[in-house]
Amino acid sequence: MKEKVLIREVGLRDGLQLLNKFCPTEIKLKWLNQQTKVGFKEMEITSFVSEKVMPQFKDSKIILEHANKMVCVKPFVLVPNLKGAYIAMENYAKNINFVISASESHNLANVNLSISNSLSGLKSFLNKLKEMNIRKKMVISVTIATSFGCSIEGDIDTSKVLKIFEKLVELSVDEIGIADTVGYGNPKSVKRLIKEIKTLNNKIPIVGHFHDTRGMGMLNILSALDEGIRKFDTSIQGLGGCPFAPGASGNVVTEDCVFFLEEIGFDTGIDLKGVLELSKKIQKWLPDESFFGKFSLSGLPKKSIYKNL
Amino acid sequence: MKEKVLIREVGLRDGLQLLNKFCPTEIKLKWLNQQTKVGFKEMEITSFVSEKVMPQFKDSKIILEHANKMVCVKPFVLVPNLKGAYIAMENYAKNINFVISASESHNLANVNLSISNSLSGLKSFLNKLKEMNIRKKMVISVTIATSFGCSIEGDIDTSKVLKIFEKLVELSVDEIGIADTVGYGNPKSVKRLIKEIKTLNNKIPIVGHFHDTRGMGMLNILSALDEGIRKFDTSIQGLGGCPFAPGASGNVVTEDCVFFLEEIGFDTGIDLKGVLELSKKIQKWLPDESFFGKFSLSGLPKKSIYKNL
Repeated sequence: MKEKVLIREVGLRDGLQLLNKFCPTEIKLKWLNQQTKVGFKEMEITSFVSEKVMPQFKDSKIILEHANKMVCVKPFVLVPNLKGAYIAMENYAKNINFVISASESHNLANVNLSISNSLSGLKSFLNKLKEMNIRKKMVISVTIATSFGCSIEGDIDTSKVLKIFEKLVELSVDEIGIADTVGYGNPKSVKRLIKEIKTLNNKIPIVGHFHDTRGMGMLNILSALDEGIRKFDTSIQGLGGCPFAPGASGNVVTEDCVFFLEEIGFDTGIDLKGVLELSKKIQKWLPDESFFGKFSLSGLPKKSIYKNL
Repeated sequence: MKEKVLIREVGLRDGLQLLNKFCPTEIKLKWLNQQTKVGFKEMEITSFVSEKVMPQFKDSKIILEHANKMVCVKPFVLVPNLKGAYIAMENYAKNINFVISASESHNLANVNLSISNSLSGLKSFLNKLKEMNIRKKMVISVTIATSFGCSIEGDIDTSKVLKIFEKLVELSVDEIGIADTVGYGNPKSVKRLIKEIKTLNNKIPIVGHFHDTRGMGMLNILSALDEGIRKFDTSIQGLGGCPFAPGASGNVVTEDCVFFLEEIGFDTGIDLKGVLELSKKIQKWLPDESFFGKFSLSGLPKKSIYKNL
């Protein structure tokens, strides 16, 4: 039996958030259907954020409604604040991902809140869910952005990440993402942070969200795998990134990562040929974007283990 | 004291060999000068191959002559066969890299020889150098291409690589390259092969030459680093690749690799800002090529360790 690694495809959220053009809702729905067919079980599908700030997600309710009808899919929505979380909940989101930066300046620039206000918003929301007796029906994930450094502040001391991590454990969130939002992490710093985190709490599931801003995304995933992490956010063709790293490359490329994981003996549950077909479609749907996939340029190798694919 | 890792820049050879257009000699010379200034000590600069087969290298003698005048530079030339080796020697090449594939079909397709004939050509050449009493003045490197698989034959059994490796040790070559020519390697297979090789001979210097054909080039370098390898071939912007993997991405990107190595604490001797400037120039010189660099899109992070750069 191969060990499983879960790839949470974030293209429909992280991948689309920096696009200047609105991606038509019907395309997003096709994309969502297709990625489900090729085997993705968890995905970030949209963001409940002000339409003025991000018109890309003005159709978030439609996307979520559609995803909620799908069987065997765990669709996450991103929320920047309490207001977004309430709207998501009212629209029957079951899996909500809050984002809070370890960098005070990045949190302010990204979600217009102090870290302390982000945390208290999260706390109110969790309390509300308990009051309504629906806390256990929801999955509340929190991604700690800029965990390895920040393009505004520069170095981010690990103690800042650990402090937020401890607070999140206290609040009993369901999983915590460690995000290298602007490519400041490297295999050594990733290893070090995960070791420290695990000293604080070894039970809460950790998600690795490593942007490939400076070419180390996959290396950071390999390093996190060595430390026992088994869930990662990636996006097809590496779409996405951070508004505070303009012009840079984005996420780790899903196709490349899935191929790599399968090659070293993990089971991702993803259909390798299917994900390449979806990748080709996405390139047609978003003709103005930059694409970073390598595996999609070459396809499956002629190895005997793939002969039946 | 930081431990050193040597990056052998192969852009002028591997990076140019697939170009349809001839890159003007004056550009190549500027490129060579510039890469020396930013700190590269070893480099592959050209190939002594038939002009009919690769017109790109019709100026190989001029390039070598220029490189031979440079101080503190160890310029390698690639040769496909005995004839190329003799011409290189007659033109005062001091560092010669032979290429021999572990795949019989790839060797035939690539250099039009059986593996056995490649090896006997190498042997004659080494004998000739001994006769002339100049063997010790030369560095003879051999790269074992398709060490992890081949786009013609598919799987390549490790025993085939080890057999060539043993033969090369017997012939007392100065260093041996392990090449993943078409992206068939992964961090596990790289680790396994290096361990087996080291069981046979732990003294001969090994060079890692991992193409990024399926996105695993840097992962394979990390894996080889773990096994003690301290010398790698890369090319600026990932130029190059293999004629038998058309359309695929090429080498590991030098800039990304240098940044990664410096970040995890190795000393490459390369000026990080200088290599980014050279990378921009190369993109201007070769406007029709695809570029794969990530670090060059974002530049140095705002970390305090880089504040004086």
